[in-house]
Amino acid sequence: MALQPSRRGLAPNRRAPWRERLFTIIFESDTPAGKAFDVTLILAIGISVGVVMLDSVRSVRQQWGPWLRLGEAVFTVLFTVEYVVRLLCVHDPRRYATSFFGMVDLVAFLPGWIGFFLPGTSYMIIVRVLRILRVFRVLKLGAYLSEANILLASLRASRKKIEVFLFTVTMLVIIFGSLMYLIEGEENGFTSIPRGVYWAIVTLTTVGYGDIAPATALGQVLASIIMICGYGIIAVPTGIVSAEMVRSAGGPRKERACTGCEARFHDPDAVHCKYCGKKLEAP
Amino acid sequence: MALQPSRRGLAPNRRAPWRERLFTIIFESDTPAGKAFDVTLILAIGISVGVVMLDSVRSVRQQWGPWLRLGEAVFTVLFTVEYVVRLLCVHDPRRYATSFFGMVDLVAFLPGWIGFFLPGTSYMIIVRVLRILRVFRVLKLGAYLSEANILLASLRASRKKIEVFLFTVTMLVIIFGSLMYLIEGEENGFTSIPRGVYWAIVTLTTVGYGDIAPATALGQVLASIIMICGYGIIAVPTGIVSAEMVRSAGGPRKERACTGCEARFHDPDAVHCKYCGKKLEAP
Amino acid sequence: MALQPSRRGLAPNRRAPWRERLFTIIFESDTPAGKAFDVTLILAIGISVGVVMLDSVRSVRQQWGPWLRLGEAVFTVLFTVEYVVRLLCVHDPRRYATSFFGMVDLVAFLPGWIGFFLPGTSYMIIVRVLRILRVFRVLKLGAYLSEANILLASLRASRKKIEVFLFTVTMLVIIFGSLMYLIEGEENGFTSIPRGVYWAIVTLTTVGYGDIAPATALGQVLASIIMICGYGIIAVPTGIVSAEMVRSAGGPRKERACTGCEARFHDPDAVHCKYCGKKLEAP
Amino acid sequence: MALQPSRRGLAPNRRAPWRERLFTIIFESDTPAGKAFDVTLILAIGISVGVVMLDSVRSVRQQWGPWLRLGEAVFTVLFTVEYVVRLLCVHDPRRYATSFFGMVDLVAFLPGWIGFFLPGTSYMIIVRVLRILRVFRVLKLGAYLSEANILLASLRASRKKIEVFLFTVTMLVIIFGSLMYLIEGEENGFTSIPRGVYWAIVTLTTVGYGDIAPATALGQVLASIIMICGYGIIAVPTGIVSAEMVRSAGGPRKERACTGCEARFHDPDAVHCKYCGKKLEAP
Repeated sequence: MALQPSRRGLAPNRRAPWRERLFTIIFESDTPAGKAFDVTLILAIGISVGVVMLDSVRSVRQQWGPWLRLGEAVFTVLFTVEYVVRLLCVHDPRRYATSFFGMVDLVAFLPGWIGFFLPGTSYMIIVRVLRILRVFRVLKLGAYLSEANILLASLRASRKKIEVFLFTVTMLVIIFGSLMYLIEGEENGFTSIPRGVYWAIVTLTTVGYGDIAPATALGQVLASIIMICGYGIIAVPTGIVSAEMVRSAGGPRKERACTGCEARFHDPDAVHCKYCGKKLEAP
Repeated sequence: MALQPSRRGLAPNRRAPWRERLFTIIFESDTPAGKAFDVTLILAIGISVGVVMLDSVRSVRQQWGPWLRLGEAVFTVLFTVEYVVRLLCVHDPRRYATSFFGMVDLVAFLPGWIGFFLPGTSYMIIVRVLRILRVFRVLKLGAYLSEANILLASLRASRKKIEVFLFTVTMLVIIFGSLMYLIEGEENGFTSIPRGVYWAIVTLTTVGYGDIAPATALGQVLASIIMICGYGIIAVPTGIVSAEMVRSAGGPRKERACTGCEARFHDPDAVHCKYCGKKLEAP
Repeated sequence: MALQPSRRGLAPNRRAPWRERLFTIIFESDTPAGKAFDVTLILAIGISVGVVMLDSVRSVRQQWGPWLRLGEAVFTVLFTVEYVVRLLCVHDPRRYATSFFGMVDLVAFLPGWIGFFLPGTSYMIIVRVLRILRVFRVLKLGAYLSEANILLASLRASRKKIEVFLFTVTMLVIIFGSLMYLIEGEENGFTSIPRGVYWAIVTLTTVGYGDIAPATALGQVLASIIMICGYGIIAVPTGIVSAEMVRSAGGPRKERACTGCEARFHDPDAVHCKYCGKKLEAP
Repeated sequence: MALQPSRRGLAPNRRAPWRERLFTIIFESDTPAGKAFDVTLILAIGISVGVVMLDSVRSVRQQWGPWLRLGEAVFTVLFTVEYVVRLLCVHDPRRYATSFFGMVDLVAFLPGWIGFFLPGTSYMIIVRVLRILRVFRVLKLGAYLSEANILLASLRASRKKIEVFLFTVTMLVIIFGSLMYLIEGEENGFTSIPRGVYWAIVTLTTVGYGDIAPATALGQVLASIIMICGYGIIAVPTGIVSAEMVRSAGGPRKERACTGCEARFHDPDAVHCKYCGKKLEAP
């Protein structure tokens, strides 16, 4: 699926002109009012996520607790109002409510109300953080859309190569993890095969926390082999994506052949054939 | 060697029609039954590897030990039956038994029987994990084959470049490791040259466990140089693979063979066969 | 903006011939004297930054303190003199003083005087280090300019792709950081969401200090997912820049301007100008 | 400079036929005897470096000390003999002795003799390890030469880009290191600016030992910024090398234009123009 403006399939509610006007402001971003709304929304989302994050810091919570809770309450009300307005100005509210962004919009304020009526539900914090997904609406802000689509297309075009790659990595990681479990044993932190696999992933991806590290000579030799492997393996996904982007970056060039000499690979902005000088058709 | 469906050179046993039918199901994946068999097999392999891994976690083993051993027994029997059936429906059982996948299939259940008759052979665990290699059979599931082949071809085409690269890295790592052994000495964890080399590999690959880290000023200066080197060096294998994949990226090329000379690998925009000059069909 | 010789828009003071001659020496690098001045300047900057750095090492400061302070005083006077001379030989001193490099030149000696009159201002150290920015003047030393411009152009051309990428990374990092805060909790070092986000950044970028590392099984599973993600994600910016550089790699292109329309950036193998069709000179 | 067979400019000593025959064996690798000599030499070098490395491991030295010293003595004699023979069969011994590989050959056995007459010179260990450089002679073994040259050419072609890059990294690392020294201070391990710079290098290259890690909130924010920078920066050298290798990989293609339509970019093995079908000239 290619990213599209978020209203995909959503049509304005045409029963009242004010609803249609609201729709243009809230769901589109071509008008100045629509742009202003988008920017305000992004700011509100950013600040509200900041409030959630600060609320988790003990020292901040102890000092600014009431203010943070007030902020959370204000944003809960704001997002609720926004959700109701969205429901109102959409032609088919049920369709909006069940769409991906409809759910995200709902999730943005629901935990606020739940936390109000059922205090002490701390795991709600992750649901509250999820409202950051709403920022993806920014992607409808014109210019980013096509770039995001190119990135997505690159990844999609090489999906099967990436699957083969992940598949090979999984197998390597399980085999190396088991080997290290046998070699190093529980006394060096490799208490089980899953833990060995965790270590192998940490090593192969070159993260290298150091919370588990080989201590025996044989273990260090094997670890060295894995690291050199990881070195070579890191080249594979990069190669895949690079090749795909090189291809997609030059994509449009391929479609324009000179009518004189049939030569191709003209730059997108070329006016004349670079080989025979004949005028090219407009791209 | 290019990856090929695993039965490479294996032919069905044509003496009995049921054996031929079984061969189609077990060794091929074109029929619905064959696909179903493949998927079942992969699930069985996945679960059995999961059982081995969980069996190594002390807390899980203490609580679910008997169930895990039962599961292992069931999979041992299953894989044994599968192996016998494979032997039966193949034209040349000896050839199958000595092939790579024949060995892997054997290794998948042999440790189960050995563990049954000779308990306490803990190092068998790695042999039991090796059954995950059987999942490579999934690669015969059509679409992945060509992708895996492109990846392999990229790596093979740049084999010599990669060898020169590994060669240079080995030399760098030995020289830097010895230097650090001299500079830092035993009191900072660099107890021997091999350990210094291990540290150099950990650093050059940007893994950086931190179990050994330079403590003297001179050691840190040298470490900084190695890291900046590693930074530049990491670019080399990526560049190699990227360049190779950009060149071979023309996935669609493969599907267009010249009707005159059967040559393939034409560029997507080629009009004539580059070998015999005959006009190509449109892509 | 493309990097340009630093005097951008600066003209020599033509009222006195000695000022114009000084201008050529100080602001340009085509003459032998100008080159000598540039090299001396770079040496002076390098040594003076080295003095600042050594001054922060306690043992060095205790032993060589007076000499370091003398060195700093000498460089402060030198840079002050240089600044005054620059002001003198420039046509529009105010314009120079308010330009970026004018500010950097000022900042190079100001902390020295402030520290002289107001001792004990230790945070001045960072301002003193900033004089290293003056080394960017080296970029006007001919050959580097076009290379730096190619790098800048590559980054600029893919600016929006990079923004989309950074945007996605930010969101991933916040969501994963919050999840880890919930899963691991304060007892394992994840004392707040911002700290979880910090851990997620450390992990996703494959830095992996190990100062915070997941300790629970679930946390390690999630960490493994993030690392594998990071593995794939690291491919994206590399792919973007690689593709851009492959496209713009035609270094020699820049040297061939069409004699008809003065357009540049022709492919190395182009025969005709791609804009006006006029035959190009051979490369 | 391009890598060339190591005898660059060296001619056989033609005064005696046995010297000329020895020259062919020792300095060239076209004959079976020459190849056998090369392989033996590489084995000898590998084993002798292994002996040096094992000699540094305390437990191995305590148990196998005399054998290791015997091995070292044998290799010292062997390499001495080889050096003398090389001197004998070369036309201009002085030229060989002062060449790079002549020095390396000398260094391979000199420390052995020095250690024999002046025991207790432990720093000789690094000189003894340097004999591994002799393995570079393997590069004259045909196939590797051109690959190594392609890698070298890629790096050389992008030398200036890499210099600009290293230059920018140096400046970033100094500025960030000073900032962290101010922010974190001595109590968190940032005891001086050079140490801060060391930390910045460890972080920017994504090595991340964790021996020094930011502890304050502000320090962690700054560290996060550096890491994200490092993420983007790691893309630059990779992009440079990739672009260079893509260009050099397709290098020869550019030189062959179709005489019919002037189209280029034909594959190295193409016989006919892919656009107009006309026969191409041989590459």
